[in-house]
Amino acid sequence: MSKQRWAKRKGTIAERELIEKFWGSEGWCAHRIAGSGSNKFPSPDLIVGNSLRKLAIEVKITSDDKKYFTEDEIFGLKEFSNIFGAEAWVAIKMLKEWYFLNIEDLRQTGKSYAVSIDELRNKGLLFEELIK
Amino acid sequence: MSKQRWAKRKGTIAERELIEKFWGSEGWCAHRIAGSGSNKFPSPDLIVGNSLRKLAIEVKITSDDKKYFTEDEIFGLKEFSNIFGAEAWVAIKMLKEWYFLNIEDLRQTGKSYAVSIDELRNKGLLFEELIK
Repeated sequence: MSKQRWAKRKGTIAERELIEKFWGSEGWCAHRIAGSGSNKFPSPDLIVGNSLRKLAIEVKITSDDKKYFTEDEIFGLKEFSNIFGAEAWVAIKMLKEWYFLNIEDLRQTGKSYAVSIDELRNKGLLFEELIK
Repeated sequence: MSKQRWAKRKGTIAERELIEKFWGSEGWCAHRIAGSGSNKFPSPDLIVGNSLRKLAIEVKITSDDKKYFTEDEIFGLKEFSNIFGAEAWVAIKMLKEWYFLNIEDLRQTGKSYAVSIDELRNKGLLFEELIK
């Protein structure tokens, strides 16, 4: 399997893991958007919600202690969230823990957005904090 | 291509057509749910919305003047809509026109739900009526 395909596969597995966590939480549901990376319309990876809140989420997984989002990913996430009326979040599984960061807290570095483990620990929410 | 695969392909094309219609309407957006037919969690085909309304939609297309939904399809649609806090609709392209029917207006016939062209013309909404 090519490196690119393997990265995509890992991403899908991470998205499914997160979907299980939401469905396992009373009152929450979550689904993957079809072809979210290649969609011609602005799109998050996941749409998540309960009767009161709607979340649009872009998902990443890494064994490193930092991760980048492209401008396109963040623009698509923001654009969709504005139209749909959803909170815009990124979810990152870093060093085996899930963190959630509001896109307002993302740091732009040139043409991409960077997130480090320190930022996630300082400004990110854990799963239980996000859904409470 | 097998009959079953062709039916699935036609369904996907219909879903994409509907998605284009929503994105083409001021303030609306729409996405397909990944693997909605084979999903282990209750799922609609589409999630659609604007800042005020959220719609979960099951989509069918037919050249016939009646169409059936399975119990599983309607149960999944209803279940997801309850949790997510969305209006539950079926969208049917019948005799080349799109109609939208609230699931409360579906008629149960044994183990499935039936919709005829007469019912769609009487109780269904056209696209412009649905989104206004």
